[in-house]
Amino acid sequence: MPEQQKDTHPPSPDAGPGTPIPVAILGAAGAVGQRFVQLLDGHPWFKVVALTGSERAAGQSYAHACHWILPSPMPEWAREMEVMPNLPEKAQARLAFSALPAAAAQTVEPLFAESGVSVCTNASTFRTAEDVPLVLPEVNPEHTRLIERQRRERGWKGCIVANANCTITGLTITLKALLDKFGLRRAFVVSMQAISGAGYPGIASMDILGNVVPYIDGEEDKMEWEPRKMLGSLKDSGVTLADMTISAHANRVAVIDGHMLCLSVEFDKKATLEEVGEAMRDFAAPQVSRDLPSAPETPILLRDEADRPQPRLDLMTGTGMTTVVGRLRQDALLDYKMVILSHNTIRGAAGGSIYNAELLVRQGWVG
Amino acid sequence: MPEQQKDTHPPSPDAGPGTPIPVAILGAAGAVGQRFVQLLDGHPWFKVVALTGSERAAGQSYAHACHWILPSPMPEWAREMEVMPNLPEKAQARLAFSALPAAAAQTVEPLFAESGVSVCTNASTFRTAEDVPLVLPEVNPEHTRLIERQRRERGWKGCIVANANCTITGLTITLKALLDKFGLRRAFVVSMQAISGAGYPGIASMDILGNVVPYIDGEEDKMEWEPRKMLGSLKDSGVTLADMTISAHANRVAVIDGHMLCLSVEFDKKATLEEVGEAMRDFAAPQVSRDLPSAPETPILLRDEADRPQPRLDLMTGTGMTTVVGRLRQDALLDYKMVILSHNTIRGAAGGSIYNAELLVRQGWVG
Amino acid sequence: MPEQQKDTHPPSPDAGPGTPIPVAILGAAGAVGQRFVQLLDGHPWFKVVALTGSERAAGQSYAHACHWILPSPMPEWAREMEVMPNLPEKAQARLAFSALPAAAAQTVEPLFAESGVSVCTNASTFRTAEDVPLVLPEVNPEHTRLIERQRRERGWKGCIVANANCTITGLTITLKALLDKFGLRRAFVVSMQAISGAGYPGIASMDILGNVVPYIDGEEDKMEWEPRKMLGSLKDSGVTLADMTISAHANRVAVIDGHMLCLSVEFDKKATLEEVGEAMRDFAAPQVSRDLPSAPETPILLRDEADRPQPRLDLMTGTGMTTVVGRLRQDALLDYKMVILSHNTIRGAAGGSIYNAELLVRQGWVG
Amino acid sequence: MPEQQKDTHPPSPDAGPGTPIPVAILGAAGAVGQRFVQLLDGHPWFKVVALTGSERAAGQSYAHACHWILPSPMPEWAREMEVMPNLPEKAQARLAFSALPAAAAQTVEPLFAESGVSVCTNASTFRTAEDVPLVLPEVNPEHTRLIERQRRERGWKGCIVANANCTITGLTITLKALLDKFGLRRAFVVSMQAISGAGYPGIASMDILGNVVPYIDGEEDKMEWEPRKMLGSLKDSGVTLADMTISAHANRVAVIDGHMLCLSVEFDKKATLEEVGEAMRDFAAPQVSRDLPSAPETPILLRDEADRPQPRLDLMTGTGMTTVVGRLRQDALLDYKMVILSHNTIRGAAGGSIYNAELLVRQGWVG
Repeated sequence: MPEQQKDTHPPSPDAGPGTPIPVAILGAAGAVGQRFVQLLDGHPWFKVVALTGSERAAGQSYAHACHWILPSPMPEWAREMEVMPNLPEKAQARLAFSALPAAAAQTVEPLFAESGVSVCTNASTFRTAEDVPLVLPEVNPEHTRLIERQRRERGWKGCIVANANCTITGLTITLKALLDKFGLRRAFVVSMQAISGAGYPGIASMDILGNVVPYIDGEEDKMEWEPRKMLGSLKDSGVTLADMTISAHANRVAVIDGHMLCLSVEFDKKATLEEVGEAMRDFAAPQVSRDLPSAPETPILLRDEADRPQPRLDLMTGTGMTTVVGRLRQDALLDYKMVILSHNTIRGAAGGSIYNAELLVRQGWVG
Repeated sequence: MPEQQKDTHPPSPDAGPGTPIPVAILGAAGAVGQRFVQLLDGHPWFKVVALTGSERAAGQSYAHACHWILPSPMPEWAREMEVMPNLPEKAQARLAFSALPAAAAQTVEPLFAESGVSVCTNASTFRTAEDVPLVLPEVNPEHTRLIERQRRERGWKGCIVANANCTITGLTITLKALLDKFGLRRAFVVSMQAISGAGYPGIASMDILGNVVPYIDGEEDKMEWEPRKMLGSLKDSGVTLADMTISAHANRVAVIDGHMLCLSVEFDKKATLEEVGEAMRDFAAPQVSRDLPSAPETPILLRDEADRPQPRLDLMTGTGMTTVVGRLRQDALLDYKMVILSHNTIRGAAGGSIYNAELLVRQGWVG
Repeated sequence: MPEQQKDTHPPSPDAGPGTPIPVAILGAAGAVGQRFVQLLDGHPWFKVVALTGSERAAGQSYAHACHWILPSPMPEWAREMEVMPNLPEKAQARLAFSALPAAAAQTVEPLFAESGVSVCTNASTFRTAEDVPLVLPEVNPEHTRLIERQRRERGWKGCIVANANCTITGLTITLKALLDKFGLRRAFVVSMQAISGAGYPGIASMDILGNVVPYIDGEEDKMEWEPRKMLGSLKDSGVTLADMTISAHANRVAVIDGHMLCLSVEFDKKATLEEVGEAMRDFAAPQVSRDLPSAPETPILLRDEADRPQPRLDLMTGTGMTTVVGRLRQDALLDYKMVILSHNTIRGAAGGSIYNAELLVRQGWVG
Repeated sequence: MPEQQKDTHPPSPDAGPGTPIPVAILGAAGAVGQRFVQLLDGHPWFKVVALTGSERAAGQSYAHACHWILPSPMPEWAREMEVMPNLPEKAQARLAFSALPAAAAQTVEPLFAESGVSVCTNASTFRTAEDVPLVLPEVNPEHTRLIERQRRERGWKGCIVANANCTITGLTITLKALLDKFGLRRAFVVSMQAISGAGYPGIASMDILGNVVPYIDGEEDKMEWEPRKMLGSLKDSGVTLADMTISAHANRVAVIDGHMLCLSVEFDKKATLEEVGEAMRDFAAPQVSRDLPSAPETPILLRDEADRPQPRLDLMTGTGMTTVVGRLRQDALLDYKMVILSHNTIRGAAGGSIYNAELLVRQGWVG
């Protein structure tokens, strides 16, 4: 895929080009919240105007309220910002990025949506709601039309748009490339997930050092259902799930960042190994999603080496936004098997939300 | 399963009860060789009379030739033994345990078998030979009858009996329990394997610390074929492979010992979750294999917790000889899924060979 | 040192030989509490009659209240025991092993001591109290005479005896062997400590995987002071600190169990390398401590290899009760330098307390 | 320290500004060689014209000869370069960066130096030679005057300039800042070193996963001697070692990159904690070294947090060229203690050599 000329001017209707859109980060002190702060540092369209936190944190400076766990230093502009409570009137933002835990998201996100803010959320809370789009810009940008139903039926002036569970982001992008060419029937997927996926403090070191934990609460259900929503077709009332079956096993391994998946997949149509490789190499995001600031130059990088991808070596491909696939080969039971790597806290969390927000701006949903 | 009264008297025809059988360890200085030394320390039937090594090591004391990597200290009797070359006339043993690399096994093991020694080998070299039994005492003790063909056609006075690749040992025992009750059609299996499976020095620390390597050379082919030989039926000329299909993905993870497998499996017959659990809990080795010194009291331990087995916690179940299964639940594509843990250098290597050797003694194959 | 004939008959004054002493474990569900349960399983003198826990845990079965994190299974006798509140009248024990956090220890341990129970505690709370002995049986068994002052001044019928911080246990035993022969002036010590020292859940995996944390709250002060109390001399009113200076740096590393220390030390007298090695090899516990059930056969094992001790290989020396020393060599600034390894949750915590309790029984302090 | 205006024009006497200097990388396929390739990608002054390797590798493309182990991809320009033998006539370079093993360096580096090439080497081979400067640009740029003696006595047209062992780079920069203000008498230093310091494949994973190895061959001697040469004063015939004593312990820990050191240090003059902190914060490289392309903006970053530096969080400070110091506090035996972190394969190896090379160009030594 040739490099896109990236559009760094937000198509803001009510401000001159280059006027940044004010955004809030909800739950800014946690692991995903920190990634939002890091990735929004220097963003060409967005300017962080509010960082929110729990009642205990509110009123403190962000530097004080937050135990920063990322290798790059906390941006200077964030250090002295006062952490605000989770209330829309205080935030003065048109967009909000939510890193809230599921329970807090249940009450806080609708408050923001109601008051006119477009909420791009990592929380799992609303992913299964019929009128909430679960979006990957490469896969289903048209699902954002569900926002109309949100506004009509819930009376919201803003909206809630969810991004997928970190584990299935790379999977769904890969499946999309294959679905478009060959149709999909069945998939068998086993994850080996990084500890950062559990937040901070998250996994106790006694539990994972030199170990594998073959269980992540609720993860397998999400892995078997969420891709079908994103790969489904938009109807008047909602999304019709894609007609395929997924069997998932989830495991936690001693890796800091990067979720790996072993995938075996069966198509509707026969395909040669070359055609399958080509389908992934040629895969491009729909036009509307293609030249946004966070769009990876290459959505899927297919590697040829026998032993790749690996978290340590391939994690930051496309600044963490590219899905890296390797070990494509025939499968004894289904059609083909392969290994998929995706950065769980960039592509699968904060970076994915920001990419979604850029799509919303481009499509004109941000008021 | 009630505890067996273990038979600690070797049924040796040519010596009084309690006279130990002299055994050699071939390739004794390597990672698996060290496990043989450790596990044969104090064995009720066997007495190590020879440790062999490469030409470079031969003539040195074992303590000098061997970089011992096990947590328990090297047994005193082994320290001063002189490492011998890989020649049967020197070894004076009736049984040999082979931890040789595949290439050395190709030439050395037949020399021993020809001279009358029963060779229990970990090497992959002869596993695919039609007349070499690939044996797990719980699964197919009757396959040792292939030894007759070895002796007839090759003119050997001894024999070669192989144990399976470490990765599939726990898998095959589990599949056997299910095959007996429900029949088997298809299985998906993804491994997360310990670094000790690659020997010493084996995997470079730069390659695996905080990482996953989704590739082990040749492993997937073995995982898809070897269980079918062991689960197959013995015919006059050899073994008819079990009529089932396995799809395998192999991965290396940052764990010292213990191979974990995610398994999804399809049966011939319908079975309830309770019946499947019962089949594993009730599974017992055939009578001939049951009360041997290395027989685990419980061949398969089925755990009920949501997050078990784990290498760190469950590895030493049954002194490393028990297969630990957990997370038994329904599968969206096949019938059931589960997680299997087996100790790769005890059950899957040295301990498995010793158990095989005990079986050979019991069956009267050891001259 | 020749193996001792161990005395497995408790010198119980008020019961026939072999009648076990009833003991309680305070704070039994935590990481150290679990080690007590494990190590007291089958103890020849002690029988666990009570497991205590927080108000939340009280009333539950131990199997239910405790998230067991040790590789060996929870003993059967413990599974169904009901967790009791931290009150002496309920416990019916003559000895109590305390794995309580420091704050709880402050109020709970005196209640037990007052009611006639001998409390062997891991908590740091009373270590600095003038009338509380800080005891290692190999080092200062005579310090238990401070119990007289406890009983006189506090009116206790029982007592509190503390064991040292896990980090300095191996250090103090090593220093004792050197002090006896050469006198001590100054020591420089840097620790590399295992994650289990921080309890459970303790250190977040994000903080330690592939990392070193050069800080443990309060640890360096303990490292610089506690050895001086244990190596000090008993006077009427208390212990006169040993006249030496220690400089300590504390670090946390990605190791499950086993604290390593780099030590440089200066003596009062000149000594040759041979004499220093001999002092450690010949070191024996005082007679009163020598043949107790938990006494290691060899208090200090001095290894000759260039690269030992190592946690993975040497941790379980003497079932985790032996201090392993290696790399003894001359120091450029002080006299000699060396590396010390000690098992932090066996020797440095539960096992050390049990050894102390055996000493109290032997000395007649347990009522 | 205010940001310097960096000079990106090499002061090349014989070419117009901006004409890059042709450089070779000796031993380019190894771990340090790869870092050279990575760090020289896009260097403003230098252009790689030759990659050399062993006889076995020579003739192959670099992509084929090299098992690339860095997370960022191999630069495109390097992939197709043909690996050349270690001979100066082939290399056509004016500067050579040597990542050769010590034995190869012994013969190869003088060949290059003789033929007019300035060799900046990581090998330890010539560090102790009286006429070879051991240079850190922040510490002793004037030591390069030893090159005159090399040329005079050895008849070389080029030169050899060594950079220090990776472990002592951060230490020596820190000691320099303190020496300048307070004088130095004695230092205790204990290292916790990353596995990448041992090259590739280097440390076996079985040896270091969940472990600490308290030994690195030859390292402690270097730690006790090399800083004294770099901190020494240049005399006619060579360098007079700094008059101080260092006691060193070296350990290997399970960290990918980043050597940590615990330091206790004694000064000639009394100093307050504030003065010591100020000495490090105010430390600047000598003028000649200050605005070179690889000069870190801040040579020493002194952190205030209780638990920093940490390899995972602070490694890339100043793109891996800054020495990060923390936990500055009083010492019980000497004056002050602190923790030092330095990137061992950037600052302590390839990046340090490149910085040295820039200094040589600036000083006019590169022909």
